Formats: sequence, structure tokens, C-alpha cells
Amino acid sequence: MTHGKEVTVRFHPDSLRATSATLLEWGGLTAEDAAVAADVLVAADLRGVASHGVSNMLRVYVGWLRGGHVNPRPQTRLVSETPSGANIDSDRGLGVSEVPRAMRLAIEKAGSTGVGVVTVGNGRHLGMGAYHAMMALPHDMIGVCLSATGPVMVPTFGREPRIGTNPIAFAAPSGKHFPVVADFALTTVAGNKITTAQRFGLEIAAGLVADAEGRPMMHPFTPEARPDITVPTGIGLLPLGSSPEMGSHKGYSLGVIVEVLTGILSGTGFGARAGRAIMNHMVAAVDIAAFVDPVRFKSLMDDFIAALQATPPAAGAERVLVPGQLEWEAEQDRLRHGIPLHPEVVTWFELACREAGMPCTLEVVSS
Amino acid sequence: MTHGKEVTVRFHPDSLRATSATLLEWGGLTAEDAAVAADVLVAADLRGVASHGVSNMLRVYVGWLRGGHVNPRPQTRLVSETPSGANIDSDRGLGVSEVPRAMRLAIEKAGSTGVGVVTVGNGRHLGMGAYHAMMALPHDMIGVCLSATGPVMVPTFGREPRIGTNPIAFAAPSGKHFPVVADFALTTVAGNKITTAQRFGLEIAAGLVADAEGRPMMHPFTPEARPDITVPTGIGLLPLGSSPEMGSHKGYSLGVIVEVLTGILSGTGFGARAGRAIMNHMVAAVDIAAFVDPVRFKSLMDDFIAALQATPPAAGAERVLVPGQLEWEAEQDRLRHGIPLHPEVVTWFELACREAGMPCTLEVVSS
Repeated sequence: MTHGKEVTVRFHPDSLRATSATLLEWGGLTAEDAAVAADVLVAADLRGVASHGVSNMLRVYVGWLRGGHVNPRPQTRLVSETPSGANIDSDRGLGVSEVPRAMRLAIEKAGSTGVGVVTVGNGRHLGMGAYHAMMALPHDMIGVCLSATGPVMVPTFGREPRIGTNPIAFAAPSGKHFPVVADFALTTVAGNKITTAQRFGLEIAAGLVADAEGRPMMHPFTPEARPDITVPTGIGLLPLGSSPEMGSHKGYSLGVIVEVLTGILSGTGFGARAGRAIMNHMVAAVDIAAFVDPVRFKSLMDDFIAALQATPPAAGAERVLVPGQLEWEAEQDRLRHGIPLHPEVVTWFELACREAGMPCTLEVVSS
Repeated sequence: MTHGKEVTVRFHPDSLRATSATLLEWGGLTAEDAAVAADVLVAADLRGVASHGVSNMLRVYVGWLRGGHVNPRPQTRLVSETPSGANIDSDRGLGVSEVPRAMRLAIEKAGSTGVGVVTVGNGRHLGMGAYHAMMALPHDMIGVCLSATGPVMVPTFGREPRIGTNPIAFAAPSGKHFPVVADFALTTVAGNKITTAQRFGLEIAAGLVADAEGRPMMHPFTPEARPDITVPTGIGLLPLGSSPEMGSHKGYSLGVIVEVLTGILSGTGFGARAGRAIMNHMVAAVDIAAFVDPVRFKSLMDDFIAALQATPPAAGAERVLVPGQLEWEAEQDRLRHGIPLHPEVVTWFELACREAGMPCTLEVVSS
């Protein structure tokens, strides 16, 4: 085993989960909440979604918990409840541990009425949305998770951000195949990709950002080569669709829909006013058996997945993917071979555990 | 009043509704269903959505009804029902009149449990999806309408269409403003725009279609100037997002989600296998009062709409629009001044009424 930068060492998910939980407890979460939050983080790493895994987000969550932005022991409150709906005030609780609770309630409601929808207001970051949506799968249910963030998306024809990245996650079970899982922001890319490009002077691809006057940048450019173009740092993201001609009003509309179903339906507010800090959520579960025999549903899903996979690939493309396929393939690999961590992350774990005064160990699978 | 081509005559919505209903009854619908279908058609014209109004779709529906593609007297069947969910086999009934029935059921369920979701399998064209979603508004509910069509969208990295246009409609009430209403296909544009451009040799804009090898056409081109590029007629549409670099996998994923929630959840099938004819639907209603006081909700909606409208416009743009604003403005104008019809459409009405042996009159508002 080498800790050098050339080799990325892979670690046992269990040891990552345990160590992450230890640090989240140090941040103030209960043991139970810390275990759930750690599971969400490691699930992201297993699925290859490193942006939402331990490397990027654990230190952020620990910082938020210790710094007071997130309330480690929220007094959550059921604002409203009906047989199929509920609205929870999460009292600035960490979405990563609070939203699974909301999703369990949605699943329970779906089990008794066919559908459950739960809003989570006054919330904070929920990690990888797919985790919450996928909680529906073992119950033969379809899961949905929406989250509204602070404003980074420029509305079509607008000059300043008013809408969040507002990711949508969706999960539906299949029979013999992997589940269909989609999880994506409604901006063309995540803000941190643009901030990174700006920091290193890299080329910014076409259709990702607006300039300071709100014009969609529909050709690639480097900040250095085009000093006349200023892009607001990390917050001038274009809606999915990029330009009005290519349908950016559709991405903008989807962003608006997510604001309505999360912040506004929960009575909390909307991102443009609340600022970057507050994130509101909605989760939903749909019991398949309320509509059709789950055996029939899964068999149709298998046929659908096979039909999509059998699409002849475009010139230059290798294969047509089904939503969730790449992440499922990553998970098969990582369950077997461990989760790769950059040496910088390993060092952070060591330092954080020392600062916390906790004995924690990351177990190496292979190197 | 002139019937010349220079002047577009405007007609009373009531007379259009009555005449359309007469012709739909001639097609075989019951008087009640014909009245509902006519109302959906004229609602589209009032909102300026001519593609789904009487000019384009009435003759199509009458043709389908008389030709047998649509069953004018369907024996619809409740396949499954729970307090919040239901699945209706619509027996090839016209979606335009069957889906309002499904939406009434969803609203009823939402009124008693908080949420109602109804799938409509074995269905046909539902007209303007916004109509069905907007049925929720007078009940202080949020409405949703999804519809899956035959395959026209090329999956990301694919060469052949596998997914429909699969439109999403959403409606939420506000207080003093217009309701927020979004209604859009998940392809960048509608197929008939491309077919028209091909027919007249017009330029096809960037980001709308794939060539015959599945490559996204990311620069404008005319079929004449680029005979090397072949575009499948009307069926090689790109998903919202256009290219993989700009997030087309997100538009493709949304298309997949709509297939799952409509055709597969209803147990009917998916577009790629069913072909162009069958369209399956899902409608949902969410009772706002199950989550938050509707007064609070509408007040937040008003603030949100105002915040979006107050966004400084981009260079060269006049104003930032809120989803549903343009359509609401068109409706205010048309309720006052009537619905403009092209002379060709007026002639079609006259001929169709004569063929049907029905006395029908279109009443002119202004010319």
C-alpha cells in the first residue's frame, strides 16, 4: 500500500461509514442520526457520486453542525398531517438525516392510501437525493425527492439568479435489472464545476453559464482569452436547455415547479428570498400495487430497460445508458473493490479524528 | 368583416365551443363528452396555444373518432382503486374527454386524503395538458398532468427514437396574480416544427434534432445546403438539453420518468413498443390545505411571482416571464376580442358542418 499521489487507495465501505458516523456524532448528531447521515454519504460514494460523498460533504456537514448553521438536535414539528400528506418543520436539521425520516413517513402513508407526500420546510442540505427516493424500492414503491436550494440559476431572459439548482431524484424498481434511478440538477451543470474552471482558468464549455448581462454563453471560452466576458462566480448558471431557442424556459419552469412543491408548499419560502442557506424538500412514495400488480410493473420495466439498452448507438458512442445504470455499475465495483479516496481526504480523516479525540480507522481493501 | 387572407377574423369562444361540440358529437361522442372536449380545445385557443386548439386538433379528433382509432363510446374500467390512487383503463377513449374525468377523481381523492394520483392506460391524445392540471386550481389544489406519446425522442448517445415528447403540465394557484402554469414537451421542440421546416426547406436551428447517425446537430443548417446530413422526418428530436455536454441525459431521464409514471404504472406498456398510436397519462392533485394554510401558500406565490418578474432583464431582453404568464395575457386579450382563426380553418368548419348535416355558426367578434 502506498499513500503517494500516484495510487488511489480503496477503502471498505463499512469502515468509512463507521468513521463518518463517529465524526458526525462529534458534530453533535445523535448516534442514530449520525449512522443514517453516514449511510447517505457512503451510498453516494458507492454509486460513484463523489460530489455528494464523504470526500466533499462530510467536512462541510461537520463544519455546519459545529458552526451552528445546522441544528444538530432539531425539535422537528409536524405542522400538518392527513392520510396521504404531511408537512414537517425540520428546525434547521440536517437534511441528510431528517429527510430519511420524512421518506419513511411518506412510505407509511403510501402503504395505507397508495400515495404519500411529505414536505420538509426550514431544512438543510439532504445529500444525494437518490438515496431518499431509493428508500421506496424495497417496498415495491416509486420514490421521488425534490430539493430547492439558494438561487444560482438565471431565469430565461434574466440577468440575475432567482432559482436554485433544485435537483430532482426518482427511483422505480425493475425485476431482473437494476432499478431506474435519475438524480440531476435543473441547471446544465453544478456550480462547483464553473467555480473550479474559473479558479484554474480552464475553458468553460458552451451552454453552461450566462455572462454578467445575462446572455447565454453558447460558445466555449476561457476567462483569460475573453476578458470582456464576465461570469458571476458560480452563480450565473443556465437552466437545462441553455438558450431560449433550445428550450431553456423548460428548465427554468422545472426549477419553478420544484420551488413551489418544496419551499412554498411547506410554507417556508422560496430560494430567491431565503438566500443560499435554507433548503426545502419534498419526498413522495407511490405504492405500485395501488395501480397495477407489481409483478406486471417490474416485467414491463425489464422490457423497457432492455428496449432502451438495445437502441443502436449514435456514431462515435459506445452504448445507450438507462438512468441509474452507470451508478449501479459503480456500486457493483465498489462493493467488491472498495471506495477510492484521494490521499488528501485520507489525511483529512486522520486530522479530524485526532481533533475530535476519537479513535477511528479506515480499513483498506486494495491499493 | 373580410374573409380575405390579409385579415384574421376573431370569433366568440362560445360559438367555437358550440360548433366544435356539434362536430365531436357527429364523430360519435356523447353530448356531455363532446362539450368537455370542445372546452379543452377552446381553452387552448384562449391561451394562445393554437397547436392544441380547434385549428389543428379538431379535425384530427373527428377523423380519429370516425376512423376508429379512438373509441367514441369507451367502456372505461377502474382497474384498481385505493383512497389516494386509481388506475383507469380508458378503452381507447379520447383523452381530451376522458382525462378530465380522471382528474375529477384525483381531485376528489386529494380532498379526502391530501393527494390523489390517477393513471389512464390504453389512452389517446389528451389535448393541452395544462387544462387538466388547471382543473385543480378552483379547489385550492396543485395539479399535475403527464402524458407519454409514441417514440420521437432519441436517447442520449442513441441513434433511433425510443421516448415520446412526453409533456409535463403543472398548475399552482396564486393570490392576486395569475396561476403559475407550465406545460411543455421534453424534447427541445415539437416534431411538427421540424416536419414543417423540412417540407419548406427552412433552416433548422441548432440543438433541435439528431442526424440519421444520432449525432446532435449543434449548428443551424438547411437541408438544401447540407445534403450530407439526413434527419429522420419528424422523429429524430433531441431531449431537452440537446447535447451530452449541455445535459441532454437530464431531458432523456425526464422522458423515462414520464414513461414509468404513465404507461408502465398503468400496466399498459411504453411508447417504444406501443408505437405512435397509444398515449398513456397520469394526473395528480395535491390539496394545499393538507400541507399549509392556502392563504399563506398564495401569499408566498404572489411574492415569488413578483420576485421573478422583478429580475433585471438580460441584455436585449424586454422582461422576465413567469411560467403561464404569456398564456394568461393571451387569454385576457382573447376573452375580450375573440379567438383569431385563419380563413382556411373557417372554411374547414363550414365544409365539416355541411358534411355533418349540422347547422353550425361561428360568431364574429371583430375583424
